[in-house]
Amino acid sequence: MFSKETYQNRRKALKERVGSGVIVLMGNELSPMNYEDNTYEFVQDRTFTYFTGRPEESLTLVIDIDNDREILFGNELTIDDIVWMGAQPTLREKAEMSGLTDIRPTKDIEAYLKEAQSKGRKIHYLPPYRPEHRVKLHEWLNVGLNDAQPSVDLIRAVVDLRNHKTAEEIEVLERACDITADMHMEAMRLVRPGMKEYEVRAAVEAVAYRNGGRPSFPTISTTHGQTLHNHHYTHTLNPGDMLLLDCGAEIEDGYCGDMSSTMPVNKKFTDRQKTIYDIQVASHRAAVDMLKPGVPFVDVYEKSAETVVEGLKALGIMKGDAKEAVAAGAHAMFYPCGLGHMMGLDVHDMENLGEVWVGYDGKPKSTQFGRKSLRLARPLEPGFVLTIEPGVYFIPELIDYWGSEKRHSDFIDYTELNKWRDFSGIRNEEDYVITETGARRLGKKKPITTEEVEALHS
Amino acid sequence: MFSKETYQNRRKALKERVGSGVIVLMGNELSPMNYEDNTYEFVQDRTFTYFTGRPEESLTLVIDIDNDREILFGNELTIDDIVWMGAQPTLREKAEMSGLTDIRPTKDIEAYLKEAQSKGRKIHYLPPYRPEHRVKLHEWLNVGLNDAQPSVDLIRAVVDLRNHKTAEEIEVLERACDITADMHMEAMRLVRPGMKEYEVRAAVEAVAYRNGGRPSFPTISTTHGQTLHNHHYTHTLNPGDMLLLDCGAEIEDGYCGDMSSTMPVNKKFTDRQKTIYDIQVASHRAAVDMLKPGVPFVDVYEKSAETVVEGLKALGIMKGDAKEAVAAGAHAMFYPCGLGHMMGLDVHDMENLGEVWVGYDGKPKSTQFGRKSLRLARPLEPGFVLTIEPGVYFIPELIDYWGSEKRHSDFIDYTELNKWRDFSGIRNEEDYVITETGARRLGKKKPITTEEVEALHS
Repeated sequence: MFSKETYQNRRKALKERVGSGVIVLMGNELSPMNYEDNTYEFVQDRTFTYFTGRPEESLTLVIDIDNDREILFGNELTIDDIVWMGAQPTLREKAEMSGLTDIRPTKDIEAYLKEAQSKGRKIHYLPPYRPEHRVKLHEWLNVGLNDAQPSVDLIRAVVDLRNHKTAEEIEVLERACDITADMHMEAMRLVRPGMKEYEVRAAVEAVAYRNGGRPSFPTISTTHGQTLHNHHYTHTLNPGDMLLLDCGAEIEDGYCGDMSSTMPVNKKFTDRQKTIYDIQVASHRAAVDMLKPGVPFVDVYEKSAETVVEGLKALGIMKGDAKEAVAAGAHAMFYPCGLGHMMGLDVHDMENLGEVWVGYDGKPKSTQFGRKSLRLARPLEPGFVLTIEPGVYFIPELIDYWGSEKRHSDFIDYTELNKWRDFSGIRNEEDYVITETGARRLGKKKPITTEEVEALHS
Repeated sequence: MFSKETYQNRRKALKERVGSGVIVLMGNELSPMNYEDNTYEFVQDRTFTYFTGRPEESLTLVIDIDNDREILFGNELTIDDIVWMGAQPTLREKAEMSGLTDIRPTKDIEAYLKEAQSKGRKIHYLPPYRPEHRVKLHEWLNVGLNDAQPSVDLIRAVVDLRNHKTAEEIEVLERACDITADMHMEAMRLVRPGMKEYEVRAAVEAVAYRNGGRPSFPTISTTHGQTLHNHHYTHTLNPGDMLLLDCGAEIEDGYCGDMSSTMPVNKKFTDRQKTIYDIQVASHRAAVDMLKPGVPFVDVYEKSAETVVEGLKALGIMKGDAKEAVAAGAHAMFYPCGLGHMMGLDVHDMENLGEVWVGYDGKPKSTQFGRKSLRLARPLEPGFVLTIEPGVYFIPELIDYWGSEKRHSDFIDYTELNKWRDFSGIRNEEDYVITETGARRLGKKKPITTEEVEALHS
């Protein structure tokens, strides 16, 4: 974690922005798998992390702005906890590392909040995204299980703070991205026919662990890259396959890296693979070249999509005007996802607070297939950290679904397209910070062109 | 999964045992980490698995005994799901593999159950162990979030069925245990000074994946074996350390293996390590020798604990009568856990249904430190599958805590004990099925004596 002053300053800035009332920031609980004591590896709520740095479960931070109090609610360990889980600092000692000195037992939180509520004071909370959050809001604040009314003031204040990364945050993110790039280069060196997808996964995750981190999200390691979030790992890597790897490391406090690579199992791309791969790289570069303060990210997305359309037109798969095709949504046959997303303490930073606030600054999102998956559209500002990850996918189920109704046949030649239906998919992804004048890649450069990938591979 | 007849027969047996009313078996939901779409690897509720075999999230099985209906509630995939997650059989096709033909959308469940409730029919459900279960019971049945009244009839029926493993279950468990033994032998071959705990973890988990399985619970791979459930992996293995490994594989439907080993990093145990290790093995063997139908497992536990006390008496660490020491709970300084637990579709089988039903057949549990962690006490019956895992631990925090008040100083010599305070801990664990006449180990034999472990290691 950072020095306690960092967390104190963050809380101070939060209080100033929110102005009045009582802020409740719920830390997460352990999540049970198939019975209560068999739990998943703990993941803290990242807003709780941002304002406290504490990685332990079952904590709640209450910031009572009106009374100028910061209270950490939690329970001290028992001797049974120590026997099973090992010795640890006391809760008070942990809290002091965050500059917090008012520690109270969890059982007292309900009375504290209900008293504030009874006085008509505003209680600010964030959107619940785990069922346990809904239960707590119900028990502490009489909020209906499906009727949460998160505080827009709090959301906007948190988003504003977390969206603008400080120099010390960028330094940690840069290290996370260095490790992330190493994970990808490890895979490029290792892949060969006969390996299993899970072996690549294990090897890249070992790079994260070896560097004191852990995977920042469930690794995607698949020869079926056309499935965007494929979490199966049992296929054998065959000659002629491409492996799509999407993974990253998280380190201190949970700061994340998130990159993707597509690499040939057989050391060399085929000409057919290169053709599509080069379209992805062109789209990627067109996007990176546009990154600077003031540019709406939706414009960057459209440019990257138009670049994909132009590439596919040259192959006869698409036709017509590229701008019109993108406006109509025809590109989403091949590019059904967004271009990128904010990244920080979450891989999709603050996705739990609502993309409309994080990526759209409160403006409405499109509902068009493809464009609705664009997580970020707002004008860029210095300190924003984001991913760039256009893709070119051939999804047989989508080809058949749209094809059966000849959807967008002004822009898509289904006869040509069907010759590519088993191609799979390509995605590359890098991470950038917006600077005062442009943008800078975070982390080591990993190979991105076919030549670079093949050079590392051999 | 098994043939559909297996699941049909299990449901038939359940209906006969419960007799009347409506049974609700909740499948699990995906569990979010730090935002809704970043989820942990899915783990199904194992009772839901037992009666359906279906590994997908967001399903509910309703068995309306009075109307002789078996209804699977769930939703079909959308094209968006397929784009992101890949093509799959339809819900109807999946259900048919379980012999289920009445499929209805999730939104209809509330009305179905509330109508049954309004007619005064008994609704049977199991204890909620995830917050999502509490929310569902509240929404579907108006159950207070902290006022669940699980059906004892349903619990006893499920426990009775699941506690008695059939031949086809034993066959799958045997395979899970074979893989589990291979995981341990892989570690014994690999460990050497300079390795990291997480490298051992990665290597043994790769054995599970390679065999089409996955870890059956979070692996323990630690040089600090005195902490019973240690989930940190960052230490370097040093010469003179022992590594305690507790891990297993789960395969089809989730059937588990669960074994532990303690091995010298340096290829050879020291004489001091052997001294304690041999006490653990003697305790382990004493327990295994007693396994047969009719023997109360609490007697086996007491015998294993007395064996530990006798061993420690020979070293001057304990004193007095072994039976009296165990009755008083003095052994729990070194042996604060139980001897073993039921194993099947859960590692701790049906822990979510309550140990008092699974392991005590409704009889009360002890509250004494140590003995209260005994998960199984009832007389053994053919078909029970259980672990044997006595331990000998030296826990500095517990030594100081009890030592400060001279607790059990009739049985513990704190001066002698303090000479061993940094020893760490030893646990070995195997899995057994109770047969008509005795017991049989499940899975390959893995090394257990110091000679066997050293022989594999070198």
